[in-house]
Amino acid sequence: MYCIIQLQTIDNVWEPSQARKLGPYFHDGRRRIDYVLTYTVQKPVSMSPTSSGSFVRGLRQSLSRSLRRSTSSAQDDPENASELGCQEDVKRVRREEFEDNLMEMGLELEKDEGTKIPGVGFLKIHAPWDILCREAEFMKLKMPTKKVYEVKSASNFMEKISQFFNKMTKPLQPNVEDSKMETIKHLSYPFSREKQHLFDLSDKDSFFNSKNRSLIVHGVLKRTKCVRGKHNVGKCLISLLGNGVYTSAYPLHDVSNTSLLLYDEWARYSIFYKYQPIGLIRKYFGEKVGLYFAWLGVYTQMLIPASIVGVIVFLYGCATLDDNIPSMEICDPRNNITMCPLCDRVCNYWKLVAACGTARASHLFDNSATVFFSIFMALWATMFMEHWKRRQMRLNYIWDLTTFEEEEEHPRAEYEFRTMQKSVRVDSRRERRGKPKKKSLNPICPLFQTVKLTCTDRMPAYMTTLVMMCFMICATFVVVLGVVLYRIAIMTALQLTQTPATNVRATVKTTAAIINLIIIIILDEVYGALARWLTVPKTDKSFEERLIIKSFILKFLNSFTPIVYLAFFRGRLVGRPGSYIYVLSSFRMEECAHAGCLMELCIQLCITMLGKQLIQNNLFEIGIPKLKKMLRRRKTGMDTQEEELEKKLRRHEKDHFLGPFIGLSPEYMEMIMQFGMVTLFVASFPLAPLFALLNNVIEIRLDAKKFVKELRRPLAARAKNIGIWYTLLRGISKVAVIVNAFVISFTSDFIPRLVYQYMYSPDGTLHGFVDHQLSFFNVSHFRPGTEPLEPMLGNQKVEVCRYKDYRDSPWSDTPYDFSREFWCILAARLAFVIVFQNVVMLMSDFVDWLIPDIPKEINVQMQKERTLFVEMFMKEEQGKRILWNNQGESPCQPRSLGAPTLWRLWRLKVEPF
Amino acid sequence: MYCIIQLQTIDNVWEPSQARKLGPYFHDGRRRIDYVLTYTVQKPVSMSPTSSGSFVRGLRQSLSRSLRRSTSSAQDDPENASELGCQEDVKRVRREEFEDNLMEMGLELEKDEGTKIPGVGFLKIHAPWDILCREAEFMKLKMPTKKVYEVKSASNFMEKISQFFNKMTKPLQPNVEDSKMETIKHLSYPFSREKQHLFDLSDKDSFFNSKNRSLIVHGVLKRTKCVRGKHNVGKCLISLLGNGVYTSAYPLHDVSNTSLLLYDEWARYSIFYKYQPIGLIRKYFGEKVGLYFAWLGVYTQMLIPASIVGVIVFLYGCATLDDNIPSMEICDPRNNITMCPLCDRVCNYWKLVAACGTARASHLFDNSATVFFSIFMALWATMFMEHWKRRQMRLNYIWDLTTFEEEEEHPRAEYEFRTMQKSVRVDSRRERRGKPKKKSLNPICPLFQTVKLTCTDRMPAYMTTLVMMCFMICATFVVVLGVVLYRIAIMTALQLTQTPATNVRATVKTTAAIINLIIIIILDEVYGALARWLTVPKTDKSFEERLIIKSFILKFLNSFTPIVYLAFFRGRLVGRPGSYIYVLSSFRMEECAHAGCLMELCIQLCITMLGKQLIQNNLFEIGIPKLKKMLRRRKTGMDTQEEELEKKLRRHEKDHFLGPFIGLSPEYMEMIMQFGMVTLFVASFPLAPLFALLNNVIEIRLDAKKFVKELRRPLAARAKNIGIWYTLLRGISKVAVIVNAFVISFTSDFIPRLVYQYMYSPDGTLHGFVDHQLSFFNVSHFRPGTEPLEPMLGNQKVEVCRYKDYRDSPWSDTPYDFSREFWCILAARLAFVIVFQNVVMLMSDFVDWLIPDIPKEINVQMQKERTLFVEMFMKEEQGKRILWNNQGESPCQPRSLGAPTLWRLWRLKVEPF
Repeated sequence: MYCIIQLQTIDNVWEPSQARKLGPYFHDGRRRIDYVLTYTVQKPVSMSPTSSGSFVRGLRQSLSRSLRRSTSSAQDDPENASELGCQEDVKRVRREEFEDNLMEMGLELEKDEGTKIPGVGFLKIHAPWDILCREAEFMKLKMPTKKVYEVKSASNFMEKISQFFNKMTKPLQPNVEDSKMETIKHLSYPFSREKQHLFDLSDKDSFFNSKNRSLIVHGVLKRTKCVRGKHNVGKCLISLLGNGVYTSAYPLHDVSNTSLLLYDEWARYSIFYKYQPIGLIRKYFGEKVGLYFAWLGVYTQMLIPASIVGVIVFLYGCATLDDNIPSMEICDPRNNITMCPLCDRVCNYWKLVAACGTARASHLFDNSATVFFSIFMALWATMFMEHWKRRQMRLNYIWDLTTFEEEEEHPRAEYEFRTMQKSVRVDSRRERRGKPKKKSLNPICPLFQTVKLTCTDRMPAYMTTLVMMCFMICATFVVVLGVVLYRIAIMTALQLTQTPATNVRATVKTTAAIINLIIIIILDEVYGALARWLTVPKTDKSFEERLIIKSFILKFLNSFTPIVYLAFFRGRLVGRPGSYIYVLSSFRMEECAHAGCLMELCIQLCITMLGKQLIQNNLFEIGIPKLKKMLRRRKTGMDTQEEELEKKLRRHEKDHFLGPFIGLSPEYMEMIMQFGMVTLFVASFPLAPLFALLNNVIEIRLDAKKFVKELRRPLAARAKNIGIWYTLLRGISKVAVIVNAFVISFTSDFIPRLVYQYMYSPDGTLHGFVDHQLSFFNVSHFRPGTEPLEPMLGNQKVEVCRYKDYRDSPWSDTPYDFSREFWCILAARLAFVIVFQNVVMLMSDFVDWLIPDIPKEINVQMQKERTLFVEMFMKEEQGKRILWNNQGESPCQPRSLGAPTLWRLWRLKVEPF
Repeated sequence: MYCIIQLQTIDNVWEPSQARKLGPYFHDGRRRIDYVLTYTVQKPVSMSPTSSGSFVRGLRQSLSRSLRRSTSSAQDDPENASELGCQEDVKRVRREEFEDNLMEMGLELEKDEGTKIPGVGFLKIHAPWDILCREAEFMKLKMPTKKVYEVKSASNFMEKISQFFNKMTKPLQPNVEDSKMETIKHLSYPFSREKQHLFDLSDKDSFFNSKNRSLIVHGVLKRTKCVRGKHNVGKCLISLLGNGVYTSAYPLHDVSNTSLLLYDEWARYSIFYKYQPIGLIRKYFGEKVGLYFAWLGVYTQMLIPASIVGVIVFLYGCATLDDNIPSMEICDPRNNITMCPLCDRVCNYWKLVAACGTARASHLFDNSATVFFSIFMALWATMFMEHWKRRQMRLNYIWDLTTFEEEEEHPRAEYEFRTMQKSVRVDSRRERRGKPKKKSLNPICPLFQTVKLTCTDRMPAYMTTLVMMCFMICATFVVVLGVVLYRIAIMTALQLTQTPATNVRATVKTTAAIINLIIIIILDEVYGALARWLTVPKTDKSFEERLIIKSFILKFLNSFTPIVYLAFFRGRLVGRPGSYIYVLSSFRMEECAHAGCLMELCIQLCITMLGKQLIQNNLFEIGIPKLKKMLRRRKTGMDTQEEELEKKLRRHEKDHFLGPFIGLSPEYMEMIMQFGMVTLFVASFPLAPLFALLNNVIEIRLDAKKFVKELRRPLAARAKNIGIWYTLLRGISKVAVIVNAFVISFTSDFIPRLVYQYMYSPDGTLHGFVDHQLSFFNVSHFRPGTEPLEPMLGNQKVEVCRYKDYRDSPWSDTPYDFSREFWCILAARLAFVIVFQNVVMLMSDFVDWLIPDIPKEINVQMQKERTLFVEMFMKEEQGKRILWNNQGESPCQPRSLGAPTLWRLWRLKVEPF
């Protein structure tokens, strides 16, 4: 209130331009708004900012002040306090206290209560120059010094190559000055007022850019105490936000050149083929967001070679379609093979030729190129990690983060809230027992007691978490089983109605996959919310990590369980003709098509991937934010004369209508899931990288648009790396190796073909492989009641039918036991898994070891910087020393004359000798 | 020279005590010697330090000076320069130049040429206070401030536990104050002269301890230029040492309390059960050595549970010796099984009962407890790594290294030398072609040209390295093969002479193992030297890493090839009776004893481990240094009146006779090899941890003795971690998982027993397992000439004999083919490998993830420290602000009055309202 009065006087003196007035400035048009806190004000009071309502507010203030006095002097009236506590007025008092403290810290404030947006008050914060200096020194913010040096590649040859490369990629580079200026770099040094002379302070307004200013103000806010007394530093703002004293806190968007440039050179679909202006993004959004987009860029870039190879592998499959001996044999009607019925009683005998179509299609995804491709993709994943590590290091160097330490952890608002609830509970319990209330540091709200959530408080939460996690995982499995049962049931029903087999399969497969997809998307959202609800740790960082881990586990299982079922379980436990295995005593376990499950796996993957990307991207990322924005406007009754109002709104008011920035986790999560799709089952779906690539090219610009236009500006958090996401990526790429090993050896027919070729084939080719795969079944061995209704196929009586398995023939000593070939092939499959896993892991580790994490030229440059510093300071030292010697004393050594000087004198004396 | 004159004048003024005179002080007894450089002086000149020879030296100096002038003015006389170049006198000139530069840097010097030790000159270096201050600021050396805070555990309960634990382990704690004072910690801050008030500078002599002083002087030496002109910083000392201008550089041992305490509380065998005084070690030897001993301590400590479990597993084997059904069956004479001869013609049929002894012995190492033990050890290795990471982090915190950055890399002396050789070569080539000599910065020695070793220079080296590495690896394999052939040959010879089978085996095994051991030890030394010779990289760090990797690969292969052969190859490719496989067409491949190779593997491991430890420890680590010291003394003709001279020697002279410190690599290497022995084949030798433990308990004190008494004091290098050794440890523990999986599944009979029990056994026990393992052979199927000479066993004609393999019987359709059981068991073995590897890896990763790398309390304390700092500086700031406000201006904000002050004034005005 005081503030506004003060500022109005200034306003009168200095008339700002219209542009400045709407920009992110105080009413005086001079001081930048570096940060905004919003709060709710009661609507009737807040129609006019300064004149009316001052009486009411004054009254309320004096009331609350007297209240404070009374409660702090003695605990005589706890009922009164708790009655009024945490109500609107108490919130106001707490705000005022906090604002007083902020001013004490040196920040300058301006209030703006419901000017254009009723019910919302804005607290605008400006940090003056000396506060900026002080805080930058505290935070060891590295700022560019005047000293400039040339960044040169190690050798001439390398430089020429990089020049050539730059020329080649010129049209791909964003049209930003930043990216051209890379040959010259300012030496950076942690800002320090004692070393002010190092920095170029000619333009104090722009020395700290808006990103740094908001970071600094945020730092001060975090450190500011709520109450004048002693209290833990760094909890106040959080608890104020947690308790609704303030509703939100955000820095403002910049309407400067940078933001326009960002829009032009980054957030447009038409420039999808260009590199991102990472430097600019970092300058505007901070390192954390910058790292995300850099990572996304690297990932997308790395997808290009993967999709090219993937397409080649697919084309190879197409090209060799007609040379494939097993499918030729299957399709050859001369191989008159009678197959056993696929279910008891209702199914008939069938000819192998019927499976011709699927056999041919399977070859597209089940050929020797796939094995090569999965080894390639495993190495690709390693290369990607390595490439990213190097890129990250390079960015760390360019962004002067090499010496940056992670900031301290701060508690979360929600945790604070729970602590408060507990302390209230404790107090009321004590009261009931007649004990005196625990002494509280803040008598108005019992918020600031040092109550901790102990083990016993957390135990239920832990147990809940555990139980819920288990429950949700089970739910996932049940859903998958449900879909399986649906498929079996439909299948059986359709078979009973005697529809042609291929149509049946196609219909069922597609509908089942779509149902799966829908369930996955729904559960994804449910699980995200549940994981959020389940996580209660103390600090922001550990909260984020645990939340990520939980939702990752759930979403991962959700997405991949159906696929894992298809790849490894379907068609394994089916029994044999005459003793098929049934679930729920009436549904027969699903079998794969004759040529293996790989084809169906591929369809499932394709639908899941495309569907998820289309629905989640388009619907959730574009549609829902728009809807929310509309709702937010309607809530404040703003949707009618929108257009003209929009123009009159000031920056902080405009930003209020944007969506709050909720962190990068959803973006990362989406990408990690995609990475899983691309690497985990790549053996069965070589086109996955291509789909991912297409999606990501759009995704980058979509996210860019969102960040520039749709969301409030995020706090420019500093970060050296992408944190837990890297761990998850590593985890996935490790799991991918073993999953692919199993897909190749168990899901595809690669190993049986190989074994046949080298151990059983009479002529070393695959001729006869189809026959070798099929075991014999004597029709008379059907248990009574399970034989097919139709004992004839065509006009022939069937006596012996064939089925796909390696079992002993009916006429051997051990009929229908697993044959020697079965065990031999099993051993080969297992051996392949061991060899594949260990070879690929070894190769990955070797690549990892071979490529240094820190690029060589960065190393060289970092060393150069260090040397430059030593030189700079040595020069400074010498200057000082001369000064001291002239003055006859040094500040550090109180002896009269330094030894070196003495020495030099001696030398002068002896020299002529 | 000037120096000595100067100092003698001081000597006359101030008479030091006798103790000080012999201590590490200049002649004036006041200034500490912080560092010593030694060089050779021509013997005749150097008998008396100052008086005589000054003329000669003066002459030489003026000569060299004129020489320098002539060569620097023009290249008129290159022959002269190259003739004299790099001779004694040029060395002297270069020394003097360097010394001038050192004095310019502010160091104080004193020379001591051949006083007591003829032929050796000492350059003693002292750093005065202001140089110490300046350098400490440059190096960002963290020094304790005055501010003290209490280190408290997070909760009361934890504190009580730790108190109780401390009380319990009291007798195990070294008797050093340091370890008790851990409840209070000085806040540390990088030393800065501007913040001098933070530090307790009351005792300037002890503020920087001898370790820090030598570190600082070393830093200055590294940075000092050789010539006055411009030149790359940080190469000079190295090249001077590389060219023999100086012979060695070392800091001096301290005769202070610390060193005595170290001897008493660390370097004695009688206190082997105590913890090491790590803090003290670090204080005296620096962080790098401290970390080594801390690591060794953690490793030894972790070996205790491992050896206890190992002993229990061994005892379990002993206890169940008589319950083991397979060995009972083998030893039961009623099972009258006739075995086929083990070689063609000369060998006879034998009874299975003969294998009773080895079968029983095998059970000691081949029982189900071994499987448990190898899982345990895999997790143990992970736990060890985790424990070490945490310990390292804790030490980093206690030693204030958390913000320490690795120092810049500096080139190696040897590399400098090679560069010099090349530039000489280039010059002479140019001369031959008649071209003018390249302009050199230093005309005396052509050392300082910016000649780099390019690819073409390195290519031969790379090729040599590659070829030599391959050659040496082949050599290792050949040696192993040689030993195998020896064993086969002796075996055959002994069999021909009809000695009893058990004696034969025992003799051959033992002699072979001993031969192996001797070869391993010899090759170890050879490979170490070769690896050293092969490595030529540019900087110290990369040199060290590459050297370590090379010698690690060689030594690792050397030690483990015979063991790997025994575990996985021996007895695999033996063929079957009637068609045995021969090598070199006359030696039959070795077979294992009936109960598997595990027993022999165990003997080999035991002998290798014990032998290596005994011989390498005792002979090489104790004997050879003693011998070397004796030789060094004899060289200087000092061994006669040793005792009385010893007393008169000054500190730097005494240290001259100690062995130079050659780095920690050999110590680490020894331990890493041991770690390999302990983890890699632990499945076959559960007592390995116990042996390792016993060895290490001695090793610690042995190393301690060496460091305190036998070696020159190492430079107190700072280091945050153990570097590449950690990577190697991780690598070994990863390999250990898969090796153990293979040992269990392929070397031991664990899987066949399991498969028999669950698939083939009629009653679910192991009864009949022995019979099941043996295939039948029809004697009439011997190829002519291979049947045994004696067709009878006892008095029975043998018609069918048995052999250990899973093959079809002679009367089946496919005689002697691998049977279905063979493939089934193979599949089971492979499945076990996959399951074991992945489960153990998953568990390890889980343990890794579960245990945070940074201990919680350290995290809490680091945060506390940060908060304390913010508070401290905020207080300081406020003090300043008040000062400025009183003065009416702030240094950073030129505006007249800060907004907060204005604000406060406003408030005062409005308050009464």
